[in-house]
Amino acid sequence: MLINGDSGSTISALDRGLQYGDGVFETIAVADGRPCLWERHYRRLESGGSRLGISIPDHATLFKEVSTEIGLNDTGVIKIVITRGRGSRGYRPDSDSEPTRIINFSSWPDYPVAARTTGVVVRICSTPLSQNRTLAGIKHLNRLEQVMARLEWDDMEISEGLMLDSDDHVIEGTMSNIFMYKDGQLHTPDLTDCGVAGVMRGLVLDVAAEVGKPVTIRSISRSELLAADSLFLTNSLMAIWPIRDVDGKSFSLDSIDQKLVSEIHNRAYV
Amino acid sequence: MLINGDSGSTISALDRGLQYGDGVFETIAVADGRPCLWERHYRRLESGGSRLGISIPDHATLFKEVSTEIGLNDTGVIKIVITRGRGSRGYRPDSDSEPTRIINFSSWPDYPVAARTTGVVVRICSTPLSQNRTLAGIKHLNRLEQVMARLEWDDMEISEGLMLDSDDHVIEGTMSNIFMYKDGQLHTPDLTDCGVAGVMRGLVLDVAAEVGKPVTIRSISRSELLAADSLFLTNSLMAIWPIRDVDGKSFSLDSIDQKLVSEIHNRAYV
Repeated sequence: MLINGDSGSTISALDRGLQYGDGVFETIAVADGRPCLWERHYRRLESGGSRLGISIPDHATLFKEVSTEIGLNDTGVIKIVITRGRGSRGYRPDSDSEPTRIINFSSWPDYPVAARTTGVVVRICSTPLSQNRTLAGIKHLNRLEQVMARLEWDDMEISEGLMLDSDDHVIEGTMSNIFMYKDGQLHTPDLTDCGVAGVMRGLVLDVAAEVGKPVTIRSISRSELLAADSLFLTNSLMAIWPIRDVDGKSFSLDSIDQKLVSEIHNRAYV
Repeated sequence: MLINGDSGSTISALDRGLQYGDGVFETIAVADGRPCLWERHYRRLESGGSRLGISIPDHATLFKEVSTEIGLNDTGVIKIVITRGRGSRGYRPDSDSEPTRIINFSSWPDYPVAARTTGVVVRICSTPLSQNRTLAGIKHLNRLEQVMARLEWDDMEISEGLMLDSDDHVIEGTMSNIFMYKDGQLHTPDLTDCGVAGVMRGLVLDVAAEVGKPVTIRSISRSELLAADSLFLTNSLMAIWPIRDVDGKSFSLDSIDQKLVSEIHNRAYV
């Protein structure tokens, strides 16, 4: 692990990342020894940092440190955490606080082998996602809602939990975004009020637009989701996972545009 | 600082407190070398831990470590942070994770001297508090909303910012709870959907009930707040601070029951 450029494993217990969750993070697939979709991940760090008022380390520094941390590994995961840095007591940041950067390589997760071909089983969580425009879309370190949702199930057959806002709109999975096919059209939840605007979600939106079949971004209710023709999940590691079952209701994978899926898989790991 | 019972200043960068804000905390006044309202603080840690599924260290261990950390200091602040402990990547906690406990003494904050007598100036923040019954009331480590609200002002004359939910109900200050006098009756916001149930708020509720003038807990709109006769803030360090000004509107301190204030001050620091 690299902490502020040096090999290490600990941070100050007074870091605002710990005290308040005052920071942002990225989870990045590593393939062929390189961080995949790097420019998109870096842009999202910048965007989140800008909204929270946290200075993101410059591109060259971060890329160099990510490459150092990957080292000779071919495949795996890079997680970057950037916090507002160390602070004294109280919510007000010190004017001279320096952001903390943590870069950590870990092995590729133990994902179900058939997830991409036969699809995954998901459930709907009862822990709600709260709505807050100030924080919506940002991949910040306040993730207790996801932790509480993930604590709802133990069944290893269930790969992901879907989270709804308090108005019963489907927003995302605990670690993924969701897309829905209905009558040949692709839809994904609007994230204006809550949720994380995933990098892979962004790639799907861009690729779909490029091929002339743009995704409709809108509110999607629980009942609409359950009436979908097909569903899939996205994140930076899984790329696209079709959903075959939601709380016991089966979904066909047939409506999923396989040309779109191929194109995403071609571009997700470079 | 004591970390898991040992003198130290760092925690693992893989601690879930940092990665997800997965933990709870307490801020405790120290007077005469003792942690004030200790039993109330400990009970709140237990209650928050129970709701999040985090084991709180036993009472004797924590009290002993708090006393050690206070040492020979007479006056100051103890902050306790309990996290779910170290984890591997992903929201699901490891089944064998051991909670991390951090106990830190700091000096008494530089509060305005006249706050108690002449009252403080506060503002209404535009950063909303999000509503989520799963987390409401808990003093957990997901505090980005408070950080963003505190970033809204620089004016040192403003002692606190009030936060509203997205339905324009007043909930609390960034670091305090709020009470309102109207027609001789004391009211405080309902925290079922958001906010932190402060220890000093709990003491005020108990003392008011003991003297036969129970506080009404209910939703309070922005306009109702601004039409109050008198207002005050509470937290474990300030005890009670009257409010003399909200965004330029003056408030009288006359409706505040001075017997209640005296009784709170008598009981707040023991």
